[in-house]
Amino acid sequence: MSEQFDAKALIDDLGTRARAAAAELAFAPAAAKEAALTAAAEAVWARRVEIMAANGEDLAYGANKGLSPAMMDRLALDEGRIKAIVEGLRAVAAQPDPVGQVISEWDRPTGLHIQRVRTPLGVIGVIYESRPNVTADAGALCLKAGNAVILRGGSESFHSSRAIHACMVEGLRAAGLPEAAIQLVPTRERAAVAEMLRAVAHIDVIVPRGGKGLVGLVQAEARVPVFAHLEGICHVYADGAADLEKARAVVLNAKTRRTGICGAMECLLIDRAFYARHGAVLVEDLVKAGVEVRTEGDLLNVVGTVPAAPEDFGREFLDMICAARIVDGVDGAIAHIRRYGSNHTESILTEDDAAAARFFQRLDSAILMRNASTQFADGGEFGMGAEIGIATGKLHARGPVGAEQLTSFKYLVTGDGTCRK
Amino acid sequence: MSEQFDAKALIDDLGTRARAAAAELAFAPAAAKEAALTAAAEAVWARRVEIMAANGEDLAYGANKGLSPAMMDRLALDEGRIKAIVEGLRAVAAQPDPVGQVISEWDRPTGLHIQRVRTPLGVIGVIYESRPNVTADAGALCLKAGNAVILRGGSESFHSSRAIHACMVEGLRAAGLPEAAIQLVPTRERAAVAEMLRAVAHIDVIVPRGGKGLVGLVQAEARVPVFAHLEGICHVYADGAADLEKARAVVLNAKTRRTGICGAMECLLIDRAFYARHGAVLVEDLVKAGVEVRTEGDLLNVVGTVPAAPEDFGREFLDMICAARIVDGVDGAIAHIRRYGSNHTESILTEDDAAAARFFQRLDSAILMRNASTQFADGGEFGMGAEIGIATGKLHARGPVGAEQLTSFKYLVTGDGTCRK
Repeated sequence: MSEQFDAKALIDDLGTRARAAAAELAFAPAAAKEAALTAAAEAVWARRVEIMAANGEDLAYGANKGLSPAMMDRLALDEGRIKAIVEGLRAVAAQPDPVGQVISEWDRPTGLHIQRVRTPLGVIGVIYESRPNVTADAGALCLKAGNAVILRGGSESFHSSRAIHACMVEGLRAAGLPEAAIQLVPTRERAAVAEMLRAVAHIDVIVPRGGKGLVGLVQAEARVPVFAHLEGICHVYADGAADLEKARAVVLNAKTRRTGICGAMECLLIDRAFYARHGAVLVEDLVKAGVEVRTEGDLLNVVGTVPAAPEDFGREFLDMICAARIVDGVDGAIAHIRRYGSNHTESILTEDDAAAARFFQRLDSAILMRNASTQFADGGEFGMGAEIGIATGKLHARGPVGAEQLTSFKYLVTGDGTCRK
Repeated sequence: MSEQFDAKALIDDLGTRARAAAAELAFAPAAAKEAALTAAAEAVWARRVEIMAANGEDLAYGANKGLSPAMMDRLALDEGRIKAIVEGLRAVAAQPDPVGQVISEWDRPTGLHIQRVRTPLGVIGVIYESRPNVTADAGALCLKAGNAVILRGGSESFHSSRAIHACMVEGLRAAGLPEAAIQLVPTRERAAVAEMLRAVAHIDVIVPRGGKGLVGLVQAEARVPVFAHLEGICHVYADGAADLEKARAVVLNAKTRRTGICGAMECLLIDRAFYARHGAVLVEDLVKAGVEVRTEGDLLNVVGTVPAAPEDFGREFLDMICAARIVDGVDGAIAHIRRYGSNHTESILTEDDAAAARFFQRLDSAILMRNASTQFADGGEFGMGAEIGIATGKLHARGPVGAEQLTSFKYLVTGDGTCRK
């Protein structure tokens, strides 16, 4: 089977269909896209038993393959999770359509009127791991922005993704949109991924959704541009001028609300002035909440802390673990974050406007916060309805990637027989 | 010499300095950047004799190498051209500073206030051919947007670029900005280019400025993202509802004002209805103006036209030559452009709003025009002050690339001890 499998022919075929669909989608009415997503939501709910049965096949395959409990949990669908998929589809359906929006417009002395308007990007490739809901989320966001999408789910979620994809196609069909607007690579063969990464003629951008391993591989191999999410090594800095109660609340929330998301705090930086005033209360709170705090110097006096290894700074734990260190003021925090951060999300806790301004100006993370929990680093919390991922690069997309960032733009120029001198 | 040349060490060194300069530039005051560019303009003018002497060396080298007259012309600097460089620097100096601009802001029900603000991209690599003025233009635009730049000029313009670069550094020094903000690769060795294209750790985006050969090479070899300008195969479509006099003026201007620029018309499409009403007047005008019109069918009846070969459609002539064809209405024009265009700039000549709307909506060129000459495809004409090039891709930058498109953005989020539920 594997020997006869022609990955290039498959991706050429999917890519050609996607390109043709994208040409149609570029001027599809907003109402048609909304109707497709609403119909897809209805189909997912109507076919939930079928989807759960397909998921059962995946779970059996996963158990057989010896997936970890965390992986099995990510893979599993129940009625609650299917309801969340349905709600996600409805939320994207209800969002404003970005295509055709006038971003800016101006007149020129020549008499020309220039508009810059949003257009779809074209064809997007999404490569993801075991979460079957990405099939619906990513498909919906790409469609909203007028893009065709080629989805390549993890081999573990093969049947679940296929069942959800069938509902998306049902939605497209109901709305009279091309079925190739949302395609799923119909094979577990890994060669298909390698072929997608090279398919510059067919795919305009690749969005990898998954762990560091997947994203690193995609970045290393891709000839197609990538919106990559690398690590979320998020820092919270408690400044000397922080409000104690706000600081305690935010630090605890940033670390413990959910530890497995990219916006979770991985390192706490405490201003020497804060420490002089309030002691190690933030670290004590974390330890009491069950967090393993890896630290150094005076902070090690807190019972329950453990000495940090050098590599614990700049590390993404994604667990009830964090690093902590005392720094000298906002400049000390900035220096630490520049050295160890991943330019994802950092928060300063302070009542001092000058310190906050310095932190905002001198750091270049995708998201900088003041007196807020890093756990807000999320497209939904930003008001984007949903996100296809969080981009840690600086080209085109940055931070939570919603429908708007899946667009490009074109200039529309109107004259009256206008010639250039 | 060549054997001992270590391109990697050179680019690592330039790249490390550039990264450090970029970190400073990211929060350099707008006034300092403006002062640096003004001082650079003054230095270029003060040192014009020196620059012309350096240019003389390049011209001698070029003559010796047997460069074509067109290449020699591109390379040559006289006082007029140096004055244009000075004016370009002053124009960029006077532009608004994009860095820190609030692109949008909004409140969330959680109490968070979110701002999206412009930031520099980081380090930009510019690889160009023989035009020495790019040293000043590209350096100025990158600086305006807070980016460090590594310039790699063509070997023909080596001395001229070096002399102009020295003036840019003088400007930086006068304004107290890091000298490594604008660096010039100090060697003609080609290995340095290959190394820049791979320098993902040091360079965030590469902008190639030159002919198809250079751009194609850069796109094929680069691991660093590229803002590429491929071909400008610009179409003008004369609709049945065109105003005859406007159409005559625009067609002539679009082809003949300057033939060597990417916005020059390369193909004229005439609606069958236009032809029925006005005959081949547009083709006659072109022939009279000295244009070689390569065409087919009825249009060949115009004395002086020549039969088009199939490859003349979709060809960038950059000369007093163009293709011409009769098509069936706006949909015929759209189909032709989709097949043969390069998504650069196309113009529709019509008084019919519905035809113009269809052309604007169904084509996806970076620039679409109505009743205007394609020769307006230019950053200066768009009001950007200057351009580093025109991007034909759809990611991040599109169309004329001015300072604003050399930026990224970050989110600044303000709460009041705000935690996520």
